[in-house]
Amino acid sequence: MKFTLQHNDPNSKARVGIIETDHGKIQTPIFMPVGTAGTVKAVHQRELKDDIKAQIILGNTYHLYLRPGLDVLEAAGGLHKFNGWDKPILTDSGGYQVFSLANSRKLTEEGAMFKSHIDGSKHLFTPERVMDIERIIGADIMMAFDECTPYPCDYNYAKNSLGLTHRWLDRCINRFNETEPKYGYSQALFPIVQGSVYKDLRIQSAEYIASKNAEGNAIGGLSVGEPAEDMYEMTELVCDILPKDKPRYLMGVGTPMNILEGIALGVDMFDCVMPTRNARHGLLFTQNGIINIKNEKWKSDFSILDENGTSYVDKEYTKAYLRHLLVCNEYLAAQIASIHNLAFYLWLVTEARKQIIAGTFYDWKNKMVKQMAQRL
Amino acid sequence: MKFTLQHNDPNSKARVGIIETDHGKIQTPIFMPVGTAGTVKAVHQRELKDDIKAQIILGNTYHLYLRPGLDVLEAAGGLHKFNGWDKPILTDSGGYQVFSLANSRKLTEEGAMFKSHIDGSKHLFTPERVMDIERIIGADIMMAFDECTPYPCDYNYAKNSLGLTHRWLDRCINRFNETEPKYGYSQALFPIVQGSVYKDLRIQSAEYIASKNAEGNAIGGLSVGEPAEDMYEMTELVCDILPKDKPRYLMGVGTPMNILEGIALGVDMFDCVMPTRNARHGLLFTQNGIINIKNEKWKSDFSILDENGTSYVDKEYTKAYLRHLLVCNEYLAAQIASIHNLAFYLWLVTEARKQIIAGTFYDWKNKMVKQMAQRL
Repeated sequence: MKFTLQHNDPNSKARVGIIETDHGKIQTPIFMPVGTAGTVKAVHQRELKDDIKAQIILGNTYHLYLRPGLDVLEAAGGLHKFNGWDKPILTDSGGYQVFSLANSRKLTEEGAMFKSHIDGSKHLFTPERVMDIERIIGADIMMAFDECTPYPCDYNYAKNSLGLTHRWLDRCINRFNETEPKYGYSQALFPIVQGSVYKDLRIQSAEYIASKNAEGNAIGGLSVGEPAEDMYEMTELVCDILPKDKPRYLMGVGTPMNILEGIALGVDMFDCVMPTRNARHGLLFTQNGIINIKNEKWKSDFSILDENGTSYVDKEYTKAYLRHLLVCNEYLAAQIASIHNLAFYLWLVTEARKQIIAGTFYDWKNKMVKQMAQRL
Repeated sequence: MKFTLQHNDPNSKARVGIIETDHGKIQTPIFMPVGTAGTVKAVHQRELKDDIKAQIILGNTYHLYLRPGLDVLEAAGGLHKFNGWDKPILTDSGGYQVFSLANSRKLTEEGAMFKSHIDGSKHLFTPERVMDIERIIGADIMMAFDECTPYPCDYNYAKNSLGLTHRWLDRCINRFNETEPKYGYSQALFPIVQGSVYKDLRIQSAEYIASKNAEGNAIGGLSVGEPAEDMYEMTELVCDILPKDKPRYLMGVGTPMNILEGIALGVDMFDCVMPTRNARHGLLFTQNGIINIKNEKWKSDFSILDENGTSYVDKEYTKAYLRHLLVCNEYLAAQIASIHNLAFYLWLVTEARKQIIAGTFYDWKNKMVKQMAQRL
């Protein structure tokens, strides 16, 4: 993996760069649609490429490990071959899902024991095991196994957890270095900064992570319920410490507004279920604000979905039709709204990139965060 | 509407023709995907046209009347404008749903009183009201309001019901003739032959319907649980009586085998929820038989979905991937399988058309009905 920093915004810490992987290039800043079980929900791979213009998608290690399982993924030749997505893929480490989804998890120095939320079967994730699993999934970018602290989280818990995350990171790096990619293309490992909302812990963690000289670095444990100001404060603190010449990934973030603020603080990569999950509930993000398509006011609004929209659904379908589909709980509602929201997120980061290059990012960002937060 | 009979098969009663509507031409024999609530479930309009190659779709009057409702449909300028499908549409009369879906229905000479399955609200469908509703929906082909008898159905019930259906038909025709299309394009009215599985009733009904000299004629009350032989016997009997120069529509039929047999008996038009409903349960129709994609045997089968398939999903996705999506209850499973099955149904009727023109239909049909019924 290679990262080239191409531009720095003079008025903020925003940057423009390019990540080169064996599955193609990623122009940063970038948003990565989440494909939990090897599918971005309700979206065809063809639509991801042609309509949404996704450059990289996520897979969730916890879900993929449970279903279809490693035997199937390895027999397929990795996730790219399995789901037919031939551009870059990033996998999380499963840590977040072990703590949020699995039943009766138990954390030890060794790793995390948990029961599957699907069939109750018992499993152990250790740093070594997770590296092996991510090798088998075959993502271009693998994430280290960490503990994502909840919010709120008391200082002592956060401090002890951070120690564990750092020790686990060393074990991840060791295993990563001892093993080879399985399918003939390179894989990179990104470590994750933790430390909850405590400045000293975040600084300590960012310095530790920076010292590992990894191919990219991530900021975890944010967007878990803390106030946005805390998220921004921690992000800025950490970005200032992480190496400039490596991509920075703010995990699980966020709203369109969060993403622009994150870019302004020096973040290059984002992922979030929000565009697809909210789509399924009828919430559409647009340049001019948020549409709750279930509202009665759209019932007979036969204007196209989004006149500023970049995907074909924005021109092909009307607000009234989408509202009808959603009220009737039709598949097509989720399909249309998911394409719209993801295409909007990809437009947003692509436009941010242009604005940074043009030197107009800061004012544009400040205008957009106000505009996009409106309720239509 | 204009129907031109183009070819007759010398070895069966199969025919080839063309229906011309103000929304375009329909080459017969044809299968019509069912778009219950103004959407063919899990399929984009673009996919219906480009990948499935649908020439006409169905809308269900009962569903559309309840949601989005006539006010919205009329304000939109009819269903074509509402859902963005600019090719022909056929609407059923709602009769079937009143008897199968609605709560506490009550049948009188006047019409059918029923309670909505959605909110329990009370509604009255009369032949006149249904004509008015179908005018507002704006389908190119409107179906008469009838009683679809259940199976089994005793002779006296079927006989009395048939009388009612015929009296309702006269009221439908009167109202149809008294009213005008609302949106500037023509609408045709198709009457429906009933009579359960009783030959004398079917003959009597077919003669009555034929005497109306409608632009097309339908056969209802079949594929409701009776043995396939009864369905074929009644269909043949009725087709022999219905006018040769008008399209014949066998309602709610059926499996790929049923469709080929129906074509051989002189049917021109078919509709059925089977390709989409079965798709959502993981049943795929192919030239070589039926695939239950949930079966363990497909778990690591990385061959493409259907090597004979005509739609892009057949080449883009593998059996193992579709199985995984279905097991995980992912939207994309329904999306892929629905496109596959509908494209297969459209391929089937298009191929039947070619075989009729080539004079090879009969042998091909006999080979295909055996082949397609296999379990893979």
